[in-house]
Amino acid sequence: MPAIDLICDTEPMANLQLNHRAWVLCESLVDQAVDLRIHVWQSDDRRIFDLGVQAPGGLEAGRRMAGIAMSGLGEVSLAIDPRTGGPAVVVRTDQPVAACMASQYAGWAIAGDEFFAMGSGPMRASAAREDLFDQIGYHEQSDVAVGLLESDTLPPSDVCHDIASKCGVDPKHLSLLVAPTNSQAGNLQVVARSVETALHKLHELNFDISRIKSGWGSAPLPPVAKNSLAGIGRTNDAILYGGHVVLYVRGDQASIDSIGPKTPSNSSKDHGRPFAELFAEYDNDFYKIDSHLFSPGVVEFVNLDTGVARRFGEYAPDVLDKSFTH
Amino acid sequence: MPAIDLICDTEPMANLQLNHRAWVLCESLVDQAVDLRIHVWQSDDRRIFDLGVQAPGGLEAGRRMAGIAMSGLGEVSLAIDPRTGGPAVVVRTDQPVAACMASQYAGWAIAGDEFFAMGSGPMRASAAREDLFDQIGYHEQSDVAVGLLESDTLPPSDVCHDIASKCGVDPKHLSLLVAPTNSQAGNLQVVARSVETALHKLHELNFDISRIKSGWGSAPLPPVAKNSLAGIGRTNDAILYGGHVVLYVRGDQASIDSIGPKTPSNSSKDHGRPFAELFAEYDNDFYKIDSHLFSPGVVEFVNLDTGVARRFGEYAPDVLDKSFTH
Amino acid sequence: MPAIDLICDTEPMANLQLNHRAWVLCESLVDQAVDLRIHVWQSDDRRIFDLGVQAPGGLEAGRRMAGIAMSGLGEVSLAIDPRTGGPAVVVRTDQPVAACMASQYAGWAIAGDEFFAMGSGPMRASAAREDLFDQIGYHEQSDVAVGLLESDTLPPSDVCHDIASKCGVDPKHLSLLVAPTNSQAGNLQVVARSVETALHKLHELNFDISRIKSGWGSAPLPPVAKNSLAGIGRTNDAILYGGHVVLYVRGDQASIDSIGPKTPSNSSKDHGRPFAELFAEYDNDFYKIDSHLFSPGVVEFVNLDTGVARRFGEYAPDVLDKSFTH
Repeated sequence: MPAIDLICDTEPMANLQLNHRAWVLCESLVDQAVDLRIHVWQSDDRRIFDLGVQAPGGLEAGRRMAGIAMSGLGEVSLAIDPRTGGPAVVVRTDQPVAACMASQYAGWAIAGDEFFAMGSGPMRASAAREDLFDQIGYHEQSDVAVGLLESDTLPPSDVCHDIASKCGVDPKHLSLLVAPTNSQAGNLQVVARSVETALHKLHELNFDISRIKSGWGSAPLPPVAKNSLAGIGRTNDAILYGGHVVLYVRGDQASIDSIGPKTPSNSSKDHGRPFAELFAEYDNDFYKIDSHLFSPGVVEFVNLDTGVARRFGEYAPDVLDKSFTH
Repeated sequence: MPAIDLICDTEPMANLQLNHRAWVLCESLVDQAVDLRIHVWQSDDRRIFDLGVQAPGGLEAGRRMAGIAMSGLGEVSLAIDPRTGGPAVVVRTDQPVAACMASQYAGWAIAGDEFFAMGSGPMRASAAREDLFDQIGYHEQSDVAVGLLESDTLPPSDVCHDIASKCGVDPKHLSLLVAPTNSQAGNLQVVARSVETALHKLHELNFDISRIKSGWGSAPLPPVAKNSLAGIGRTNDAILYGGHVVLYVRGDQASIDSIGPKTPSNSSKDHGRPFAELFAEYDNDFYKIDSHLFSPGVVEFVNLDTGVARRFGEYAPDVLDKSFTH
Repeated sequence: MPAIDLICDTEPMANLQLNHRAWVLCESLVDQAVDLRIHVWQSDDRRIFDLGVQAPGGLEAGRRMAGIAMSGLGEVSLAIDPRTGGPAVVVRTDQPVAACMASQYAGWAIAGDEFFAMGSGPMRASAAREDLFDQIGYHEQSDVAVGLLESDTLPPSDVCHDIASKCGVDPKHLSLLVAPTNSQAGNLQVVARSVETALHKLHELNFDISRIKSGWGSAPLPPVAKNSLAGIGRTNDAILYGGHVVLYVRGDQASIDSIGPKTPSNSSKDHGRPFAELFAEYDNDFYKIDSHLFSPGVVEFVNLDTGVARRFGEYAPDVLDKSFTH
């Protein structure tokens, strides 16, 4: 081909401006706060979006929150779950490492004097406090920062200032979206993490996740739970026992054939019981649960280089039933 | 939390400007009339959108019509029906009382000398002729009005003037969308009423519908019928025998446990036969059919306060088969 | 009804400006090239969008490509396939002849010295080289042209000039979208052709396709294949053995009852084996495969005039399994 100008190109993990993308989506939350039934708290030193703490929130608030968690680099929709006939949360992305690992994964434990929350969203890429960011080779400098907090209280001023400082932004350029797991929005946005859960498990298994080029996932939307712990249980169960993820990968087939059976949740010795039951049995210590459990029920690998498709894992509708009606 | 400005808040049933929202959506119908295969009749004294009387209309015209019926406070989409493999109509809203009861419900019988139609849409909230509006505490004053008419003829001038007068608007600020039930658009927009049908039934059962905070529903899209009556039959059957609704409610559990079994269509003695068959048996008198029949086949209640989820009712695919192929 | 101005109307097959519609959609590809992981080659004498040759592309690139193939007159989305639980490609249109036949059908064999590709998109309506355009009575004069090429190399300059010349446009007003069948985008956009495949088969059976007013279709998204031929196999199999199309037609019932059983893929003697297997058996000669095979697995006819719905054909999940995992 003769020389012509290439006006656009993709650079893997070039500066994707995750925080700026998320910030633009936050602006639309302000405009539609009434419809979304959310509260927007704006002051000189921070902006907090309440999507389910004191504000009611709703399904659409959760869908938007899930999209912001992925910095707009993923598409989140509601579909009909073929097994239950009820709603399922579907997610897809063509930038899985950026959208799911650099942004959506809840990898930042935010602690204040009387406040604790798991933090997610692109602010993590600005703070880059987790080893993960060196491993994936992404660190973002941005004059705005956007984060999500799973919490049933709103973060106090000192916590917000601390986050802003760690992200290197003026506190007034920090936007935090807050919802507990047992709110409609919080519940939905966790279940939108089916692809992220697969990537995280594969990263833990030392699979080179930069080989994963696209992801599609679905999981049934569980009933909103009575408290945060029960919410963590049901949303986990939705992915572990009803999640279905397709990963589009590159590279050699042998590594996939080998890691495949270890990827879905049924590779764990703790598979087959609801999260809440396991948590109680393990003395309410999350870290005693086998970490291999935390992966979608079904994971398909489509190798773009070999054309080989492999499916691993299984649905466990009986466990879902127990979890959702208990 | 220290004093900061709350720049947005939600007020339950504050002035949601339903007619203005719907009016804006009507403008986009004008712009896309050719693509949507609809006709727009504009004169000094009214604007009529023909989506299926003389104009062909189509699937997208029906989807838009359904969205306008809910004043834009609901999301309507087509999905794959898990039972038939064909199309299903999915609807969701975080403002169920406003979207479904104050707007979408076909509660206004419009009668002229030689014209009759069931009227729906936000114009009902301006006219506020139904007891319902006192019961839900919503009445809208607006300088525009938007309504939907299920009819196989276009409304004459005097009918339009009468509607405008009852809505308190200048006739030229009235927009009416018209389609018969046996048109593509009319067929689809009725089947988008699965959540509304559940709310209406619960209201009839004296359940406090302000407790319902969000709704999600699906129903198979039936084949367009040969005439209006057959269309009413098939669209009803789609919801009664194939509809699946999830309601997110607040409040005590006992009232839900008690009303739950009475909510889906199988709570009726007339359950199990297609609408057309019942209608014929009851001497073509709609009001002789047990009113308890008119509810989705499956209704799930998710209690946001107790975390308890209950599912009632059942699908009746054999009745759907009979209805859709007859 | 008194005389009032009809400000918008639909003319069947009036100038729909297919190329202009597609051109506008191409502009959005330029703006989002990084997110879509595509390359845009712009020079004085042509513009080429690489969605999967050297550029990686992705799922969303494929969805957009499918929409442009239909000149924006169809809606393409990803849903949950009820049979596999994985992704399905859903398409619908209220302008099936224009969107599918005048635009989406890959009816133009583009050949250069060392280049060959099947061409689709609205450029075909400008060139109008196929008998089809006389048969459907559509020919477009446009100062821009947009086409899609299924190819694993980018078209050389002389091929682009030849296309532009046949379309009657300045080469710099030609946009070509290129992706091989064994890329993510190319794979998805072929599977979005379920409705088109049904129309094409009916046209071959001498059915008057102007009777078809709307179409809805779905097919499972197959795994991306290892090479073009395998990609052609899997994408065909997705439609032939997993496709489900609903056609909304007008006219007499007898003609539909008669042509119905001949429409789906199981009307062919070659039904029941994957495309790749048939191709090998027929000495790698595509034209030896029974042309009646190329149709969706299930085709439903909904007659808008008679209200009669008929379903023909069947799914063949075992053949899909063989095709997708081989």
